[in-house]
Amino acid sequence: MPSPTLDVLTIGNAIVDVIARADEDFLSAQGMPKGSMTLIDENRAETLYGAMGPGTEISGGSAANTAAGAAALGARAGFIGKVREDGLGKAFAHDIRAAGVAYGTPAAADGPTTARCLILVTPDGERTMNTYLGAAQNLTVADIDAAQVKSAAVTYLEGYLWDPLAAKEAFLAAARIAHEAGREVALTLSDAFCVDRYRSEFLDLMRTGVVDLVFCNEGELKSLYETADVDSGLIQLRRDVGSAVVTRSERGALFVTKDAVVTAPAHPVERVVDTTGAGDLFAAGFLAGRTRGLDPATSLRLGALAASEVISHMGARPERNLLDLARESGLLA
Amino acid sequence: MPSPTLDVLTIGNAIVDVIARADEDFLSAQGMPKGSMTLIDENRAETLYGAMGPGTEISGGSAANTAAGAAALGARAGFIGKVREDGLGKAFAHDIRAAGVAYGTPAAADGPTTARCLILVTPDGERTMNTYLGAAQNLTVADIDAAQVKSAAVTYLEGYLWDPLAAKEAFLAAARIAHEAGREVALTLSDAFCVDRYRSEFLDLMRTGVVDLVFCNEGELKSLYETADVDSGLIQLRRDVGSAVVTRSERGALFVTKDAVVTAPAHPVERVVDTTGAGDLFAAGFLAGRTRGLDPATSLRLGALAASEVISHMGARPERNLLDLARESGLLA
Repeated sequence: MPSPTLDVLTIGNAIVDVIARADEDFLSAQGMPKGSMTLIDENRAETLYGAMGPGTEISGGSAANTAAGAAALGARAGFIGKVREDGLGKAFAHDIRAAGVAYGTPAAADGPTTARCLILVTPDGERTMNTYLGAAQNLTVADIDAAQVKSAAVTYLEGYLWDPLAAKEAFLAAARIAHEAGREVALTLSDAFCVDRYRSEFLDLMRTGVVDLVFCNEGELKSLYETADVDSGLIQLRRDVGSAVVTRSERGALFVTKDAVVTAPAHPVERVVDTTGAGDLFAAGFLAGRTRGLDPATSLRLGALAASEVISHMGARPERNLLDLARESGLLA
Repeated sequence: MPSPTLDVLTIGNAIVDVIARADEDFLSAQGMPKGSMTLIDENRAETLYGAMGPGTEISGGSAANTAAGAAALGARAGFIGKVREDGLGKAFAHDIRAAGVAYGTPAAADGPTTARCLILVTPDGERTMNTYLGAAQNLTVADIDAAQVKSAAVTYLEGYLWDPLAAKEAFLAAARIAHEAGREVALTLSDAFCVDRYRSEFLDLMRTGVVDLVFCNEGELKSLYETADVDSGLIQLRRDVGSAVVTRSERGALFVTKDAVVTAPAHPVERVVDTTGAGDLFAAGFLAGRTRGLDPATSLRLGALAASEVISHMGARPERNLLDLARESGLLA
C-alpha cells in the first residue's frame, strides 16, 4: 500500500453561506427551529432572502469547511463537491483552492444554481440554517476521483450528503474505494435533524463497517439512539463503530473506541460570535492531528482549538492562522 | 420649503467588497501602495482575485456604507448608485434595502458587471483596495431622482464619483437640485490618491459653493493643499468651504467653520480588525447627529462611535446595533 499523498479528503455539499444577524422573533415569525438546518427550495430561498437582513457571503459547506480547516493546520487536504458555473460557484472554487485545498470537481454547465445556505445568527451566537441544495444535488459517482480517494489517509463524508439522492451512491462508492485501498472512512452525523431523517441508514453504515470513525455532538448522538441519556448513547455508539469523536460544546470532547475513552477540555473562547462551523472545524483539527500521528488527546485539543477560532467570528472558515495558534498553545512544534 | 422627508441621501459607486487577508509581502509582490485605492480593469480584477486568499463578500461602496450607517443610527437614509442585473447586483440591492436605506436606482440590464472592490487586509488592520468600477461607471444624470434629492436634508457625494466619467454630471445635477431646494450638499474627499487625481476640480467645487460641507482625513487634507503641514491645510480648508469634518484616526476629529473649531476624541477600540469603512461610518454618525439637530461636538462623537464599531470587524457595514451603542454611550437618549 503506497503512502497517502493526501491526509484528508472530504466529500460534501459545496455551499456558499449567506450570513445575517437576526433576533429570536425573526426565527419564530419564520417558523424556524433555532439551531437546526432546514432544506428549502429556490422559491423559499428567494422569499427568505428578501425578508432577512444584510448578508455576508462566505464559502461554507460542512465537509468543505473541514477540508479548509485541515489545510490551515498543515494537513494535505482535498475536497469533492458540486457547484454550477455561476458567480457563487466561482467564488466557492476560488475560496477553497485559496485555502490550500485540492479541488477538481467539474462545475455543472447548466441545471440548478450553486447551493447556498441562508444562515441566521442570533445574538447568542447560535446559527439557524436554511439550505437550498441547488447544484450540490447533482454530485454523482462520476464525480468521485478514485485515484484521489485512494491517495487519502482519511476520506471524510458528511451526513448531509444523504439529502441529495444521487450523492448517496457517490458516498458509498468513495467509501468502497477508500477501504479497498486500505484507507479509513469517517462520517460526521451533521445535524440531529439529519440523523432523524437517516437514522437507520447511518446505523447500517456504522454496523456494516462502511464507516470506521464517526463524528457527532451530543444532540446528534441522542437523536441517533433516540435517547435523552448521553451515557447510554455512548455505550451503544462504542458497540456500533470502531471509533468516534463526540463533541460537547463548552464541556470539551471525547474520543471513544470499544476499549478506551479519551477526554479533552474545550478551548477557551472570549466571545462566541457565530457557532457556524464549530463541528466542522473540530473535525478538521482532530483529523489534522490524527493524520500527523498525534495521540487522540492532542488531536482532540487541536480540534477544540480550531473550533474555538471559528466561533469567535462570523463564517465557518478559519480567519486566523491556525498553525500559529496551535504552536502558541504548544499543540504543534 | 417643505420639511425634508429624508435626512441623508448619498450618491456613489455601488460596489460589493471582496475582502481577504494578506501579508505585506503580498502587497509588495503585487505592487500595491498600502492603504490606497487603485482602479483596475476586469482582467486585472480576475488575475488579482486568482492570486488572493479566500474572500468574504460584503456590500460596500463608500457612500452606500454611509447611508447604511446613518440608517443604523435612526436617520432616514437613501442611496443612489448603479449595479447590473447580476448576482452581485442583486446582493447589493438586497443588503442596502435590508439595512433600511431607500434604494431605487434601476439596475443595468446589460453592459459591465456589478462593481467589485478587492480588499486586502494586512495584519495591522489596514485595508488596500482595488476597484473594478464595472456597472457603477454608468451612473448618469437620468439616475438622479430629483424628488428624492429635494426631499433630503443633506445630499452626500463621494469624491470617487469623479472617476467614472458620466457620474460627474450626475453629481453636479444632484448638487444643483439640492441647492435649489434649499438643502445642504456634502462631499467626502474619499482618498488621498483620488484628491491627487481631481485636486483642482474638488477645490473648485468648494470655492464656488457647489459643496457646503467637506469630509476628509488628514492625508486627504494634505493631498488637497499639497502640504505636509496639517495646520496650514486646515487654515486653507476653513477659507475654502463653509464647514468641514476632518478625521484624525486615533487622535479624534475636528469640525471646522470659518469662525469655529470643535474637537472630539476618538472612541476607544479593543482591536482594530479592518479599517475599511472607517471614514464612511464617521460621516454616517456625524450626519445622523447633525440632521437630528445635535451640536457638532456630539455629532462628531457619534461619528467616532460608528467608526469604532466598523473597524472592530471585517467589512464596512455596521454589524452591531449602533443605536444601542449610542444610547449606552449616552450620545442618544
